[in-house]
Amino acid sequence: MSVYTRPLARLIEHLQKLPGIGPKSAQRLALHLIQRPEKEIAAFAEALLAAKQQVGHCQRCFHLSSEDLCNICRDPKRDTQTICVVADPRDVIALEKTREYKGLYHVLGGLISPMDGIGPEQLTVQALVRRVAQEKTQEVIIAISPSVEGETTTLYVGQLIKPFTRVTRIAFGLPMGGDLEYADEVTLARALEGRRDLT
Amino acid sequence: MSVYTRPLARLIEHLQKLPGIGPKSAQRLALHLIQRPEKEIAAFAEALLAAKQQVGHCQRCFHLSSEDLCNICRDPKRDTQTICVVADPRDVIALEKTREYKGLYHVLGGLISPMDGIGPEQLTVQALVRRVAQEKTQEVIIAISPSVEGETTTLYVGQLIKPFTRVTRIAFGLPMGGDLEYADEVTLARALEGRRDLT
Repeated sequence: MSVYTRPLARLIEHLQKLPGIGPKSAQRLALHLIQRPEKEIAAFAEALLAAKQQVGHCQRCFHLSSEDLCNICRDPKRDTQTICVVADPRDVIALEKTREYKGLYHVLGGLISPMDGIGPEQLTVQALVRRVAQEKTQEVIIAISPSVEGETTTLYVGQLIKPFTRVTRIAFGLPMGGDLEYADEVTLARALEGRRDLT
Repeated sequence: MSVYTRPLARLIEHLQKLPGIGPKSAQRLALHLIQRPEKEIAAFAEALLAAKQQVGHCQRCFHLSSEDLCNICRDPKRDTQTICVVADPRDVIALEKTREYKGLYHVLGGLISPMDGIGPEQLTVQALVRRVAQEKTQEVIIAISPSVEGETTTLYVGQLIKPFTRVTRIAFGLPMGGDLEYADEVTLARALEGRRDLT
């Protein structure tokens, strides 16, 4: 017999499936939730269903969107001649939070990884090539982490779209606030390699 | 304009209200959730509503229950002559997990705390006194943490039920695996005070 009453045990089971939530946290969250007002819990359940049902992908850039085109693609103030290529919708969110980038995005939906059986055809690479050809893109900025899969993907995508437009890549180097002494060798080597003239 | 599409922003808002979940975790959980199968999300939302609607308190011991009497009070194998008094349903769950205790419980629903305006009348103290008188209880074990509020509550409850039955208190001392050297003075003093003959 479980130490929890049935409906509580079921809620804990569901919470425990979430990433980073263990049995103890799941119990704490469940006991917290059943003490909240009924209205709040109903709104939470509703938000959960709505997010699942309404959030899909932008038909143009494949970012998360609840409409055919995402907020960014529909924004008339964005510079439509620049496309930033990222692996995941999370990366779009991270870049948007900098408030520095005013162009459009293209979400690949992952990285090329032969080990996991993910080739270019599982990603939105073809759609990107079509966009670049059609949208008269001036620059494609590849913003992909420098892992093995990231490098493969960057090289592959770069080769495909270089005939159509200028292709750049975000800078790798010492992070702001990072201590030179504690930086790893690869980061330092990249920082040296990417050095620029002092202006 | 939010960097999230509306339904996603709403889900993140709800997740962020949970204890121990900050903005970053809420984003991660929300992005995880919208990628799960629709069936799983529907079941999660359903479990959330069911837990809120169905889980109330046991009429006898005030532990969490989805029926009039909780699993423990309905279990014919439990020893009905012993009542363990705790502050919170969480404490019942912790004690049940030890599989050591076979008696019943009584959940006070908090601790006496004049600073927070919580007196005995906000707790289930009267119901406990009635139970002890009616149920021919042989022993009441008070299992309340030794904080200021915990001590006040233990003394108050103890005084009230002593006329009816034997009242004991769980032991305080060095935790198992705890190092004597690193134990705080109060714990060590309690451990000395509670010493027992070696058998």
